[in-house]
Amino acid sequence: MASTPQAALQELNQKTRAISMLGSCASLLGWDERTYMPPGGVNHRAEQMAMIAGMTHEKMVEPRIGELLNIVSNSDLMNGGSTDAAVIVREVGRSFERATKLPQALVEELTRTSSLAQNAWEEARAKKDFKIFKPWLAKMIDLKKQEAEAVGYKDDPYDALLDDFEPGATVKDIEKTLTGLRAELVKMLDKIKGSSRRPKGDIMKRRYPREAQEKFGREAADRIGFDFKRGRLDVTVHPFCTGIGPGDTRLTTRYDEHDFNNAFFGTMHEAGHGIYDQGLPESHFGTPLGDAISLGIHESQSRMWENQVGRSKSFWKYFYPKAQQTFPEALGDVTLDEFYFAANDVKPSFIRTESDEGTYNLHILIRFELERAFFAGQLQVDDVPEAWKKKYQDYLGITPPDDSIGCMQDVHWSAGLIGYFPTYSLGNLYSAQFFAQAKKDLGDLDADFAKGEFSRLKKWLNDNIHAHGRRYLATDLVKKVTGKPLSHDALMTYMNAKFGELYGF
Amino acid sequence: MASTPQAALQELNQKTRAISMLGSCASLLGWDERTYMPPGGVNHRAEQMAMIAGMTHEKMVEPRIGELLNIVSNSDLMNGGSTDAAVIVREVGRSFERATKLPQALVEELTRTSSLAQNAWEEARAKKDFKIFKPWLAKMIDLKKQEAEAVGYKDDPYDALLDDFEPGATVKDIEKTLTGLRAELVKMLDKIKGSSRRPKGDIMKRRYPREAQEKFGREAADRIGFDFKRGRLDVTVHPFCTGIGPGDTRLTTRYDEHDFNNAFFGTMHEAGHGIYDQGLPESHFGTPLGDAISLGIHESQSRMWENQVGRSKSFWKYFYPKAQQTFPEALGDVTLDEFYFAANDVKPSFIRTESDEGTYNLHILIRFELERAFFAGQLQVDDVPEAWKKKYQDYLGITPPDDSIGCMQDVHWSAGLIGYFPTYSLGNLYSAQFFAQAKKDLGDLDADFAKGEFSRLKKWLNDNIHAHGRRYLATDLVKKVTGKPLSHDALMTYMNAKFGELYGF
Repeated sequence: MASTPQAALQELNQKTRAISMLGSCASLLGWDERTYMPPGGVNHRAEQMAMIAGMTHEKMVEPRIGELLNIVSNSDLMNGGSTDAAVIVREVGRSFERATKLPQALVEELTRTSSLAQNAWEEARAKKDFKIFKPWLAKMIDLKKQEAEAVGYKDDPYDALLDDFEPGATVKDIEKTLTGLRAELVKMLDKIKGSSRRPKGDIMKRRYPREAQEKFGREAADRIGFDFKRGRLDVTVHPFCTGIGPGDTRLTTRYDEHDFNNAFFGTMHEAGHGIYDQGLPESHFGTPLGDAISLGIHESQSRMWENQVGRSKSFWKYFYPKAQQTFPEALGDVTLDEFYFAANDVKPSFIRTESDEGTYNLHILIRFELERAFFAGQLQVDDVPEAWKKKYQDYLGITPPDDSIGCMQDVHWSAGLIGYFPTYSLGNLYSAQFFAQAKKDLGDLDADFAKGEFSRLKKWLNDNIHAHGRRYLATDLVKKVTGKPLSHDALMTYMNAKFGELYGF
Repeated sequence: MASTPQAALQELNQKTRAISMLGSCASLLGWDERTYMPPGGVNHRAEQMAMIAGMTHEKMVEPRIGELLNIVSNSDLMNGGSTDAAVIVREVGRSFERATKLPQALVEELTRTSSLAQNAWEEARAKKDFKIFKPWLAKMIDLKKQEAEAVGYKDDPYDALLDDFEPGATVKDIEKTLTGLRAELVKMLDKIKGSSRRPKGDIMKRRYPREAQEKFGREAADRIGFDFKRGRLDVTVHPFCTGIGPGDTRLTTRYDEHDFNNAFFGTMHEAGHGIYDQGLPESHFGTPLGDAISLGIHESQSRMWENQVGRSKSFWKYFYPKAQQTFPEALGDVTLDEFYFAANDVKPSFIRTESDEGTYNLHILIRFELERAFFAGQLQVDDVPEAWKKKYQDYLGITPPDDSIGCMQDVHWSAGLIGYFPTYSLGNLYSAQFFAQAKKDLGDLDADFAKGEFSRLKKWLNDNIHAHGRRYLATDLVKKVTGKPLSHDALMTYMNAKFGELYGF
């Protein structure tokens, strides 16, 4: 049909745009399901989602896409691999290949199992009974192995799973980086443990009225650069950020009147995702040049605004007087230094999602190491709970009293998200390395923050990261932006400096 | 493909279900657009809607639907026209025929013109300048004439438009009914005008705090039988009710702190639509047996709960003490009788959507008569403003000072909704005739209402109207349920009794 490579590229873009348009409808259905949908709507919503998923899959495996990829990739539009066309071929090609390699029966079995396994997981967690979840975990691992075999891999089947979340990443590289990180983290935590300094423990657990929290979080998100004319903030149970489409990016959070951290840093985190989404080039919507690179890079944006910015002393120099005005009851007798220390309390705990900046990556490492082991058959499903407890004892010095706050705390494995956890730590590493570079490029960012000025950092992120869409793989982007491959150096330098000052080591 | 009529029917149902599933996605997109969508999302939302509309149209005109209709309609599944299959063939056949008869170019031109005409209408209304809107109105009329010719009709081209909103209705029947209604209404209004009794004018315009209004409206909607586990109530600019799908029906309203009527009776009205929607048989979702009959029948349900129930003395016997508790400042010194009279104030006014039960149908009649005239070429577009003013003077005794609160107050004509207005009055007529029958069948409903008991009426509506889906055409349903064809008798009997008592005639 297409007579020229240019026409083929155009047709290909139309097709990927149509897929993204369906995706954007699914995003709204998903957002609504978790924010406003009445309980009675749950079955119909599942049918709507299944229909859109079916239509999307159909469009993704259209043989015509293969033909168009072929025409474009054999044309001079590729020009050595650096053109827009080359990026589109690489990225659309990867999704097309993955989608066409997966047998329809396996896709359906994964979808069905994921739904049933999540139900079993919920029950098992409520009853603190791993036995209920165990067969489903075993089945899910089996299916994910089939998926890896169907998709194919070079060195390690786990790479085939990773590639779905972090294109181009390999377990070999990740393992190297994370193992280095682990050693340093354990050292740092030992120092913190040995310190006699501790923040006033109750500051963050005082009473923070809900409406004041919402107002304060909204002001902060707005101030750092999330555009509320092109987005929203709503309430949900498990916070997330979702892009409905150009001009419409939605954050969610949850409020606990006796916990300042949860909603505030949650809002900063999701706003970081949102700022990335709002920074993607609108004119490229629906093509790889208008899309986010990977989960790791997305997480780097959320973690930077949550941690490097939101938990910095300079940030609170600007915001703390406002916080005191907003929460006079809770903060009237608390100094800036006390508050800043409380916001950076490092204390081993059982639950990943509530853990602090210092221990968070150890929670991820435990999951990564365990899923590597059971995915490779070196750990039996039966032994997961004990292995989990042992690792928590080894790395964090605590042992969860039961599996509901142990190996069954996360939804991921039941949902088939194996190979997903490491992207959280990659996000933290990217975040620190990008931030260090931004400080180098921009000079005194702390002076900006102390004045409530975040636009230079935001513009730097817009220009250096967001504007490229998926032009670069994550591993290449970090080299391009920071001149170095990803390592744990920047994160550990940053954390040792910050916690060293707070805990006196 | 289908070998048996049974298989053909099943395939047909699958196809209409798929169309309805797409429609239910469009419903959510539309609901969100008018409730929560940030302003920046408007362009992308239009693209999403256009995509769904395109996919829906494609599915509606699939030649296979014609083949399946053919197989089923020539089979013994029809059994003389009274079976489920016969209903499906009649209703799907009508949509299929209409969709296939409309040339694609005309559909696109209508869509484009409707969007541009609505923009022009907004501008014209804001500037009170009919000249800006005039060419678009002329163009829209021309396109709607083309639509009528393409669709075809027996006696009158206007019937072809009517049929889209009120299947089976003819202008001949409607004209007869509405002309009879007009004469009686004018007589009744003369009597009211001649009365010296008037409600205390300011009661409804006192201060009603927004949150209290919301709480009170929600309680009333819940009490009359709208199920909030299977629905919601949100805020919008132009209130509406939309069914997202089985188990998910959404109402909207708007609050004005100095107007009790707007939000409260608006909520009752939309809850009436919602109760119809929640009463449709879920197992037939996506087929004509699970769908609402017509705009007129839908409106009969909203008007019954808003007016026959919500503006009745017995309703307020139960709710007024609660209203006084909820709004002590506004209602502390107002008696039940005074409040009841104020809720039934009849007073000619310019704006249809804010008009009272007594004058509402004259607003509709004016629009119906004018659109009949300009659609038939008996009235030139240039002359619409003057004709409008003359009719308001003749029927209501008032002349709008400008066109923004005259012939440009409604969005309908700019949106191509010609033939739509009469369904509002049909709704009022159906409502009164059904309600009279319900009272005959159920005995003393006023005693129920005075106790806050609405379930017998709701069940009667569920059984006699909602449960049938589109099994009967509106004109047949009213005969089946009330034993008589639609007339203005019930409505006038009801209004003369109510207003006669209040105004003493």
